[in-house]
Amino acid sequence: MKKVNICIVGLGLIGGSFGLSFRKLPYIQKIIGVDHSDEHAKEALRLGLIDEIRPLKEAIQEADVVLVATPVNVIVNQLTDILDQVDQQVVFDVGSTKKNIIDSVKDHRNKKRFVPCHPMAGTEFSGPSAAKEHLYQDKYNVICNPDQCDEDALIMVERILTDIGMHLMYQDAAEHDVQVAYVSHISHISAFALALTVLHKEKSEERIFQLASGGFRSSVRLAKSNPRTWAPIFEQNRDAVMDVLDEHITVLSKFRSLLIKKDFEQFSDLMTEANEIKRILNKKNHNQEHNEYTRII
Amino acid sequence: MKKVNICIVGLGLIGGSFGLSFRKLPYIQKIIGVDHSDEHAKEALRLGLIDEIRPLKEAIQEADVVLVATPVNVIVNQLTDILDQVDQQVVFDVGSTKKNIIDSVKDHRNKKRFVPCHPMAGTEFSGPSAAKEHLYQDKYNVICNPDQCDEDALIMVERILTDIGMHLMYQDAAEHDVQVAYVSHISHISAFALALTVLHKEKSEERIFQLASGGFRSSVRLAKSNPRTWAPIFEQNRDAVMDVLDEHITVLSKFRSLLIKKDFEQFSDLMTEANEIKRILNKKNHNQEHNEYTRII
Repeated sequence: MKKVNICIVGLGLIGGSFGLSFRKLPYIQKIIGVDHSDEHAKEALRLGLIDEIRPLKEAIQEADVVLVATPVNVIVNQLTDILDQVDQQVVFDVGSTKKNIIDSVKDHRNKKRFVPCHPMAGTEFSGPSAAKEHLYQDKYNVICNPDQCDEDALIMVERILTDIGMHLMYQDAAEHDVQVAYVSHISHISAFALALTVLHKEKSEERIFQLASGGFRSSVRLAKSNPRTWAPIFEQNRDAVMDVLDEHITVLSKFRSLLIKKDFEQFSDLMTEANEIKRILNKKNHNQEHNEYTRII
Repeated sequence: MKKVNICIVGLGLIGGSFGLSFRKLPYIQKIIGVDHSDEHAKEALRLGLIDEIRPLKEAIQEADVVLVATPVNVIVNQLTDILDQVDQQVVFDVGSTKKNIIDSVKDHRNKKRFVPCHPMAGTEFSGPSAAKEHLYQDKYNVICNPDQCDEDALIMVERILTDIGMHLMYQDAAEHDVQVAYVSHISHISAFALALTVLHKEKSEERIFQLASGGFRSSVRLAKSNPRTWAPIFEQNRDAVMDVLDEHITVLSKFRSLLIKKDFEQFSDLMTEANEIKRILNKKNHNQEHNEYTRII
């Protein structure tokens, strides 16, 4: 494979971790960084996430592949501008919602150069300093509506993501948005709400710290996440998130109702039913490997 | 300190981990195990969590210290029976609720031999095979109503728990029950409900597995917990749990309402407020060390 230059737009946790991951690919010649914050860009350079900082326009011109890793509301606003400047470059994004992003360029002449992606990986931290080299290792990446991409663009993105250790899956964008609402987005709202519940109830920080066991810590971990990343995700995926949140409140209300009725037998049955998640999450990655290259749409 | 025999009643995750922790204390002569399940008892012996298996009555007679690590509903039922058989022995429990347990022996002639404890540690796994040697290292243990214990009993329990690496704090039992409802019990209900929400919405196990990122996994981790442990906890602490669950549903409904109104600014503000939990949970244990021996009631 010939050497390629790759440009990363947005140098936070997600973009920065891609920079570190790309370092081990022998065919990546240069990693060019773009960020609207000079401070972030310089930090990314200093941390070795990128090789050089360039303005967006120059970076696109010099790149063979453009990775867009900004918050989803920014992607919706900037993707048209990026595709305007594209000739034969491949563009892919890594936003957590897909339908609005795809729709934002649905009439663009270069839309087939764009491969919509969502890597199922992240942490509760943000900014270039949060970047992790192995963030994407053995994680799944969803590619949405692959039939609408140029074949060479799709193959390039598949090659790069596979080479950094990701497993690929393929989904319709609307279906993706609904499914991530309940496998990812609702977990964040739940954690934010749990943290607020505790903060409202307990005014002694010392006491929270002392009583917080590992269980509580893992439940509220996502409440540390950056609102600048997450508010746009909830906005872009509002309908699906509302639906799942409503269902979640219904389930919690069922638990409340059983407590009111002192029906601990049915309470127990519901917990046993929830235990089922253990069997599903304990599966081995390897069981899925044969699916990696099966495009399901 | 003279050598002591210690008896552990209930050889699951919690009791078994105490067995492993006690192994390093030079003054523990023998660890005697009691469990109503022969299978659990034999497994505990095989795993080296205990030195020998005995029936409850013989175990108490031979012990200097009795640790009760059964589910909280069992503790409420068996504590009177255990104290009936006590002469100079020290008894302590490690249940997650405290008021009902204390009340169950409030008129007992030997009630001053009993030290009510709650170690703020655990995992989502259960049974003897889930026991971990370092489960209690650097964790907090709450002792409730210490002024109602014989001084020698209190000192013995403080000594043992400190020697296995725990930090001590002291609380009124009713206050403890309210506070653990929102720092521990609600996290479990939230995780059970999240798991059910996803299981109701997504029928494809494969898809749940593939889309589940680390965030989702940590949010539902506690949904793997044993209903036989947790139903009794929710039953014993029903009023406080109802109150916190109701507050949690209110906060989630606020988020739902802001989604309906498309008020993402206030949605963001609430998330920023929730971020505060980060600062509190990132404190270092060492900040608290000077409080270790300050009895706060």
